[in-house]
Order: sequence, then C-alpha cells, then structure tokens
Amino acid sequence: MTLATTYDAALPEWLLARLDRLPAVLPTREERMDLVNDLADRNWRAGNGGPFAAIVVDTATGALVSAGVNVVLSSGLSSAHAEVTALSLAQRALGRWDLGAEDAELELVVNWRPCVMCYGATMWSGIRSLVIAGAGPELEELSGFDEGPMVADWAAQFEERGIRVTIGVREEEAIAVFREYGDSDALVYNARGSAGGA
Amino acid sequence: MTLATTYDAALPEWLLARLDRLPAVLPTREERMDLVNDLADRNWRAGNGGPFAAIVVDTATGALVSAGVNVVLSSGLSSAHAEVTALSLAQRALGRWDLGAEDAELELVVNWRPCVMCYGATMWSGIRSLVIAGAGPELEELSGFDEGPMVADWAAQFEERGIRVTIGVREEEAIAVFREYGDSDALVYNARGSAGGA
Repeated sequence: MTLATTYDAALPEWLLARLDRLPAVLPTREERMDLVNDLADRNWRAGNGGPFAAIVVDTATGALVSAGVNVVLSSGLSSAHAEVTALSLAQRALGRWDLGAEDAELELVVNWRPCVMCYGATMWSGIRSLVIAGAGPELEELSGFDEGPMVADWAAQFEERGIRVTIGVREEEAIAVFREYGDSDALVYNARGSAGGA
Repeated sequence: MTLATTYDAALPEWLLARLDRLPAVLPTREERMDLVNDLADRNWRAGNGGPFAAIVVDTATGALVSAGVNVVLSSGLSSAHAEVTALSLAQRALGRWDLGAEDAELELVVNWRPCVMCYGATMWSGIRSLVIAGAGPELEELSGFDEGPMVADWAAQFEERGIRVTIGVREEEAIAVFREYGDSDALVYNARGSAGGA
C-alpha cells in the first residue's frame, strides 16, 4: 500500500466561525475555565465529538495563545484530544515545540483531568501550569469515556517536573456539561470498533 | 495574537528519500523490529531528534501500513513521538481514526516501551497488538530521556483492553542504538528549556 508521509488536524468549522469572537485576554482562571466549559459544550452539540476543550494562556498577560477541542472524529486522528490540539496549536502559533522556552509562563486550562495520553502530552510540552475543573470519577461515570490507567501520584509527578497543578475551578459547571452529554444519545467512540451510545 | 487553526507533521527528508526502498511486506516480528531499529538509528544520526522509530503492520498479510520516527524537532510539535507519528500516518493511509475497526489486526512495533503519552496514544488508536524490543530502564539510562510515570501493571492494562503485548524482540540490538546515541553528543531535548547533552 502507499505509505502516508504527513498528517494534520484542524479546528472544526463551528469553532473557526467563532474564533474572532473569543476573548483575546482572560485575566482570571475562572474566566479561562468558563471559556473552556463553553467550548466543550458547543463541541459535542455541534456533532464534533467529545465534550472536551482546552486553551493555552500566557499567565504574564492573560493572553489567549490557543484554543482546542477534541477533533478525533473530524480529523480522523485518535490522538487529537483537546489538550493535544491546544498544545499543538500553541506550538504552531509560537513557532517552537517547547512552550517553556524563553521563560514563558504558559498555562493549559482543561475541563477535567487529562487522560493518560494527554497527561504525557502535557508533561512533554513545556507548559508550566495545568488548571483543571476537577479530577474525580465524574467524567468517566457521566460521559462513558475510558481515561486510561494513571499513577496515583500523578499531580506530584507534574510538580516534580516544575508544572504547577490547580484543581477545582468551575467544577460544577464542568460536571453539568458531562451530564448533559451523557444524557444525550451522542456517540461515545472507544477504539477497536467498540463505539456505542452512552 | 493570531490563533493557529491547523497543525501538521511530516516524515523527515532522510526517511522520505528511503521510503520507496522500505520492504512492503515484513512476515516476521524479527524482520519488523530490524526495520524499526534501523530507522531509529538513522533518525538520530540524521540530526532529526531521538533514536526512536515505530511501524504499523497488518498481521494478516505482513504488509507495512506506516513508518514513523520521532519528528519533535523537525515538526515543532512535542507530541510527534515515533508512535504518534506511525499511528497517525496509519490512520491517514487507511482513512479512519480507529485502527481496530473492520476487524483489522494491526500491530504497532516500537524499539522500546512507549513513554506515558504514547502508552495512551497506543491505547486509544484501536491497534490490536504492541511489540516492543524491551521495557526496562535501559532506555532512560542510556539515552537520557524522561519516559514519565507509568502504572506498574501497564501491560496487563493493555491486555484488559484487548491489546496483546509482546516484549523482547531484538532487545540487544535496540539497546545498542540507545548506547551509541547516549555516547554521542546529540541533544536530549526535555521540555521547559532544560535541553542538554546526554
């Protein structure tokens, strides 16, 4: 067979259409998570996949550096979770793979604890700070997604590598998004053909 | 700042130039790992990053479905490890994100146990089988790369999700590649500006 030599992912149409209306500056963590929860909710309602979103913010200025959502279905790439998308788009915007270079203080804001893949993706990105709405079992229970096996001391492992972890920003609002998704008939796509309604 | 809306990664020039000469069919696991070890060795010598490579093979026919190497430096994306690249290119070649759909029996062959990010990326890809040269501390000790925190029962967690794990194919040959890399003055790029010679 012919081997592929490139792969690419793009933000979905619904988000491209809103990009100019996203706030350029988000001074507080609450404002950042409000945007993330809003994007996560819009993503699944637009039929674009899971209720997940992530943004990268420059904490020195509050500037929005990137906005990502889960684009697994629309991009055809299983790695295109919200965190990977937001981190990759930040790397494109800044022109470097190491988001921690040049003493940058960049923060990844996500609407729940990352899955095991995105845990590693965050760790290798150079990001200095992770802010999540929550870290409990609610995501898997309400949405039906498998988040994978994580070490018990996952947050301490981040801190040891110089990545600050903040848990519990707009948690109830995040849970409300997962609950509405889980109560819908949206497709939960787990791998190996096992996709089924949640 | 202007938000990026797409990201992409490509195989490096040195591998593109060899692509037509890669074997189309690899009947045995030893032949598959020989190719992976060779690509890993060539990748760092070409100045393209770490000594890591991965391929996806259709075990029903032995056909090579994709070949990837670590392209973090050349693509500017911290997630572009060999496994993510090989899985993504297989998804592009087959036109679907779920490599386990349609009863496909696809196998990911890598020259060591995946890091924590690629552990998750493998889990979510739909791949049915993972073959690695080894899983011990030799990679981190010899190459200087941080592989991240993994659960102790990582292999059992794969098996529980229907992914077979085979460890110990061409292990000494894989270690020899890491050793030569570690003995060189090649750059080990860990995030947050901490890159240094290994």
